[in-house]
Amino acid sequence: MDKERLEKQIAFILEADQEKNITRQTHLTRHGRNENDAEHAWHMAVMAWLLKEYSNSEIDIARTMMMCLIHDIVEIDAGDTYAYDEEGLKTQKAREEAAKERIFALLPDDQRDELTALFDEFEAFETPESCFAHAMDNFQPFLLNDSNGGGDWREHQVSISKVLGRQTKSAKGSRELADYVLEKLEDHVKRGNIIEDREKSE
Amino acid sequence: MDKERLEKQIAFILEADQEKNITRQTHLTRHGRNENDAEHAWHMAVMAWLLKEYSNSEIDIARTMMMCLIHDIVEIDAGDTYAYDEEGLKTQKAREEAAKERIFALLPDDQRDELTALFDEFEAFETPESCFAHAMDNFQPFLLNDSNGGGDWREHQVSISKVLGRQTKSAKGSRELADYVLEKLEDHVKRGNIIEDREKSE
Repeated sequence: MDKERLEKQIAFILEADQEKNITRQTHLTRHGRNENDAEHAWHMAVMAWLLKEYSNSEIDIARTMMMCLIHDIVEIDAGDTYAYDEEGLKTQKAREEAAKERIFALLPDDQRDELTALFDEFEAFETPESCFAHAMDNFQPFLLNDSNGGGDWREHQVSISKVLGRQTKSAKGSRELADYVLEKLEDHVKRGNIIEDREKSE
Repeated sequence: MDKERLEKQIAFILEADQEKNITRQTHLTRHGRNENDAEHAWHMAVMAWLLKEYSNSEIDIARTMMMCLIHDIVEIDAGDTYAYDEEGLKTQKAREEAAKERIFALLPDDQRDELTALFDEFEAFETPESCFAHAMDNFQPFLLNDSNGGGDWREHQVSISKVLGRQTKSAKGSRELADYVLEKLEDHVKRGNIIEDREKSE
């Protein structure tokens, strides 16, 4: 066995442990505490397996799951940027690029390249696998927040135009799941959990 | 779309969320807080992908990852049983069987059967996938504990015969990783982190 290779892999595995300390805005079901990145990624990967029948296109499920599992790893350095935090979103890309370089470089070169490619594929949002992983990235916090009566939207005073912008992207991965979400969102607007900011058509 | 089917899948996904509240004995790296089941499963699945080259036999990586992701789901009802808790281990099987019935029954019938089979395959510890998933189940807390100077073993006054019993099983999944661990364990015995209880050969 190439011990140096294994020790590089272990260094990455131990570094990845830090994802468990990156707190997200989403709350666990039953009005629980804030979720962390590792929990979110675990949930997404389980969902990808269970919901793959709703993907618009055939997907390689192992690659999709691994994409789900590592898509937030750069937040170890860059922190979590809330989907509706406009200031944070401006600098997010640069912060995450630097983190990506540092963290994947812990791995042996072949796996550094493999995981970087998988991470970039997720970000580029073009392949069926990355589109479905993005759909999970949106659907997972939606489900938690919906189960909690929309508290996360109320707390952040989120408007329907912003939520729709994000959810429209989900349709690239799964039209069926996006349609399901849209119906639920209209209900949250009616209940005042999401701010109505669309112009009324005459 | 079959909405009733999707709603069953969502019911399971939301129930699975409870895994994030099941606390384990293992502590996060950098002497962090206790880990929970969802974090542990996330870490195992990432490790399965990264370390698959050390599996004794060829494995289907997607099935192995999904096994890692759901192998502790019964603990939502049954609680975590520490690997060296002899009293808890006596009733563990019955508690986990009841939980398995209840939790997987939330899914549509075909997925209830699929996940039950995957869970049982892990428990039976015979196929290459389940043996490698078990190796991850042992290697993941080993790495965290090793990185923390063996504090979890000291806290529970664990003896080397018990640790070896558990780690020997890992060799069914990966002889190479088991050998790596054995070398490290001897060092932890020397440092007094694990109790020496083997009879000395003359």
